[in-house]
Amino acid sequence: MSDVTAFRLVDVTDAEVEAIEASYGPLAQAVRGLVDATIRSNAGPEVVADALRTVEELTARLREDQIDGPSGVNYNATGKAWNWGNAAVGLRNGAAPPMTVMHEPDGTTWAELDLGAAYEGPPGCAHGGVSALLLDHLMGVTASQMTRVTLTGTLTLRYRNPLPLGPIRLDARVSGEEGRKVFVEASIAGGLGTAIEAEGIFIIPRWSGEFESVVASDAGPA
Amino acid sequence: MSDVTAFRLVDVTDAEVEAIEASYGPLAQAVRGLVDATIRSNAGPEVVADALRTVEELTARLREDQIDGPSGVNYNATGKAWNWGNAAVGLRNGAAPPMTVMHEPDGTTWAELDLGAAYEGPPGCAHGGVSALLLDHLMGVTASQMTRVTLTGTLTLRYRNPLPLGPIRLDARVSGEEGRKVFVEASIAGGLGTAIEAEGIFIIPRWSGEFESVVASDAGPA
Repeated sequence: MSDVTAFRLVDVTDAEVEAIEASYGPLAQAVRGLVDATIRSNAGPEVVADALRTVEELTARLREDQIDGPSGVNYNATGKAWNWGNAAVGLRNGAAPPMTVMHEPDGTTWAELDLGAAYEGPPGCAHGGVSALLLDHLMGVTASQMTRVTLTGTLTLRYRNPLPLGPIRLDARVSGEEGRKVFVEASIAGGLGTAIEAEGIFIIPRWSGEFESVVASDAGPA
Repeated sequence: MSDVTAFRLVDVTDAEVEAIEASYGPLAQAVRGLVDATIRSNAGPEVVADALRTVEELTARLREDQIDGPSGVNYNATGKAWNWGNAAVGLRNGAAPPMTVMHEPDGTTWAELDLGAAYEGPPGCAHGGVSALLLDHLMGVTASQMTRVTLTGTLTLRYRNPLPLGPIRLDARVSGEEGRKVFVEASIAGGLGTAIEAEGIFIIPRWSGEFESVVASDAGPA
């Protein structure tokens, strides 16, 4: 496994990164569909056994040439950054919803997404831990203000109402700062109104200075 | 989408449930491998385009007969329960790690798992929100003591150290009760020691009485 604080400088052009994303982004999206179908299908054992063989062959082919360990957070000489495996926003991660974070000029952020069968906890509802994942990520990006690295310090989540699967919206804003601490407030709402309110304290690590120019995208850690 | 509190009584035998799990469990496990390979592969655009076509065909075949909406939490007349789509533990969920919760006679719980490339946040580390997902679920199961339904009320997470991807361990215990509130403490540890400490307040909902006999497995909500 890679070094836990290793942001990697990689010698690839923006166009090369974009070409890889154009190729693998649709595959990850299709894999999300397969995850969903694996949960919801009523197909019998022969169809499923066939599917199993096909997935294993496909995976073996993709693995013929693969990186060691996880994707990491990478950047190139122009400052473009990417974190394809990120659990919340990873473009090549078929297990990520994925969430796209929107940034307003005043520093507030939001995201809208549609949660399907793979994100269930209580019957018909988003898993409380999936909400925590999405809030943690959005709040971390918000704390970073796209200009600095921040790490989660403390996260407090208050579950007010169930969050039905389907369309949801998250909102976040920085509510204050004190030295290396950044305070963030956020919420998540769905079909039954506000479901969760969250407060977080994020920390600007001492080693973050050298990466200031790097985190100019959603590729910051969370 | 289904009713947010609908635990469904389904007319199937234990053997039928086990046969479905024996068929779809390995498929979900293979899909986890495909998720990982989609993140880590260096295969070129032609291989990826082929993979995309194959995954789309496979998904279409599985969808020829599928349930409407999410899996839900189901149980049968013998009290066996299953939640195949659960985001933390779902047996048929290729996006779930999945976690298997172990129960000690004294009511404490634990889980050990190996987190791969799909659960990354900071470079080489588990996403803080993935830790939150796993803790929320384990703590909910712990609060339920497998004898009652509990819902997450408040969750507080203190991030102490990075959690490298790889083998991790979670531990949880009930620290107190007050009326319908159940207090739970938990932690998650990995290659750099204790990474996160958590406290949760879980609520026993007023409607839970009728389901008391149902949640005799990890199928409780979280």
